[in-house]
Amino acid sequence: MIASTPVPPYYAVIFTSLRTESDTDNYATMADQMAALASVQPGYLGAESAREGLGITVSYWESLEAIRQWKAQADHLIAQQMGREKWYAAYKTRVCRVERDYGFGAV
Amino acid sequence: MIASTPVPPYYAVIFTSLRTESDTDNYATMADQMAALASVQPGYLGAESAREGLGITVSYWESLEAIRQWKAQADHLIAQQMGREKWYAAYKTRVCRVERDYGFGAV
Repeated sequence: MIASTPVPPYYAVIFTSLRTESDTDNYATMADQMAALASVQPGYLGAESAREGLGITVSYWESLEAIRQWKAQADHLIAQQMGREKWYAAYKTRVCRVERDYGFGAV
Repeated sequence: MIASTPVPPYYAVIFTSLRTESDTDNYATMADQMAALASVQPGYLGAESAREGLGITVSYWESLEAIRQWKAQADHLIAQQMGREKWYAAYKTRVCRVERDYGFGAV
């Protein structure tokens, strides 16, 4: 689904990743758990995700402080470490301020 | 590929879309043409794309002015119109300033 977000400004974390071949089942479980955990963090606004070789997950947040708290969340720290050790060949995280947005259709 | 981008600040356009079922071949041709055309615009820095039901394309730019010029580019305007009329059930475009980034692996 396209995330339903408020009038800008708000914040986005663009997480782009290339997976290793390993540990697919545990990875999928973790990804689901992290999505569920993110969704109950303070300041969470929504998320969008797709993988087609390259994986792109964009999560939306009320503030930079909300993003900092999510980055420091204990279970999420463990997932970040496992990600570097096992699941990802490479990733890049970009923290952004959404300046304006517009759309079409039921979004 | 994960886009190789400079030290922030720079700008990102997050384009999230849901396709209609129609006109798959023409859509694929247009998508390839728009990716090629974007890549030769002034101020273009790179792009990342994945579709898995939801499509997410993130393009990176040196400035808001470069984004404005790309939005107003003639062939791109035609693709935007065709998108609303035919290819997309819904889309959302978000224009962002990338404040910071960090990564892992060969990015």
